[in-house]
Amino acid sequence: MKATVTVMLKPGVLDPQGRAIGHALGTLGFEGVGDVRAGKVIELELAAANEAEARTQAEAMARRLLANTVIESFRVEIAP
Amino acid sequence: MKATVTVMLKPGVLDPQGRAIGHALGTLGFEGVGDVRAGKVIELELAAANEAEARTQAEAMARRLLANTVIESFRVEIAP
Repeated sequence: MKATVTVMLKPGVLDPQGRAIGHALGTLGFEGVGDVRAGKVIELELAAANEAEARTQAEAMARRLLANTVIESFRVEIAP
Repeated sequence: MKATVTVMLKPGVLDPQGRAIGHALGTLGFEGVGDVRAGKVIELELAAANEAEARTQAEAMARRLLANTVIESFRVEIAP
């Protein structure tokens, strides 16, 4: 099963990378760009028996390693 | 409209960050972890009139700035 873990900075946490991207887009002439947030995505191939097991595994991995839950939130999507 | 641009290394391009994450998960005792790929996700708030316009804008941004299309592929999702 394929698990996709998306890790974003929590709302309210300053995101300098997102700010830099927003500024660069303005410099390139793109208009109407509001808030920009940058995050990470990790795609994992898991040997899980079913979707629930894959989700439990991926959430444990996110909590232990992939996300810093003090300042980051994560979401998990599972595909067969 | 909210656009989410996901940027991943193309298949076949070596992904040392993904490899490091896979190795670290093994060290932490997680079993059954196959291929791991790491990428970036950028969430943008766009002042577009409709979904098609937001998608066109986000794809242009990805091609110009967010992705290096020589080694990276991207996908765009639009939410109202």
